[in-house]
Amino acid sequence: MKFAVSALLAAAAVTLAGPASAQFAKPEAAIKYRQSVMFVMAQHFGRIGAMANGKVPYDAKAAVANAELVAEMAKLPWPAFATDTEKLSHEVKPALWKEPEKFKEHADKLQETSEKLLAAAKTEKLDNLKTAFGDTARSCKSCHDAYRKD
Amino acid sequence: MKFAVSALLAAAAVTLAGPASAQFAKPEAAIKYRQSVMFVMAQHFGRIGAMANGKVPYDAKAAVANAELVAEMAKLPWPAFATDTEKLSHEVKPALWKEPEKFKEHADKLQETSEKLLAAAKTEKLDNLKTAFGDTARSCKSCHDAYRKD
Repeated sequence: MKFAVSALLAAAAVTLAGPASAQFAKPEAAIKYRQSVMFVMAQHFGRIGAMANGKVPYDAKAAVANAELVAEMAKLPWPAFATDTEKLSHEVKPALWKEPEKFKEHADKLQETSEKLLAAAKTEKLDNLKTAFGDTARSCKSCHDAYRKD
Repeated sequence: MKFAVSALLAAAAVTLAGPASAQFAKPEAAIKYRQSVMFVMAQHFGRIGAMANGKVPYDAKAAVANAELVAEMAKLPWPAFATDTEKLSHEVKPALWKEPEKFKEHADKLQETSEKLLAAAKTEKLDNLKTAFGDTARSCKSCHDAYRKD
């Protein structure tokens, strides 16, 4: 069990217990994690958007696959906004650290809208996908407006 | 449907058809995507490793949740190793572009071992998790040895 696994683990989690930040070896890893999750989510959300906005043909199966990833990614980044990342979070507005309850509402809203996006994709009706895409996009935007620096 | 969604989509996919690279707006996005996926995968794999190596207490439920993410992430990065990213892929050994079939074998192997890791996690037996973690780690390492620059 020893291989070069230690190298793989170097930047990885040291514990699952304790405060959220303890899931990450260091604050830099938490920041990189949430940025990575957001980027993956945005790519798959963008593929749905391209269909919703008529830029590519509607592909019901692809819409479901992408929506599954969006819904999955939407669950992940929140513990990585740990307070010990504040000083290094140059892209985050100070408001985020001052109103964790409000931030959680945004986080919950994204998870809710992205679950609805997945449900809409599964109906295999483009109109449903369009509506749910818009709702999810508004959820992204309202949180970014509140907490992300331009 | 117009919001500020265009900004969200700017770096995102323009089409699902055509060559793999066409899933990404530009080669830089493909590289960032595969690096993001790998980082998310490594974080969750590391959390399993911490249990497998006795650094944190075994938590069967957490092991399954992390293994689900590893298995999910293991499916994603391959189309992002598109040939039009070669010139910008400073971390990739030239061999990768010269032997796509061999690279695909590695990619398939990771997906296979990570599916087995998930199955092992679901047995809720730490010994099974340890074995499957080792197999998956070897799969990571053999591909990195072959294609990732130090």
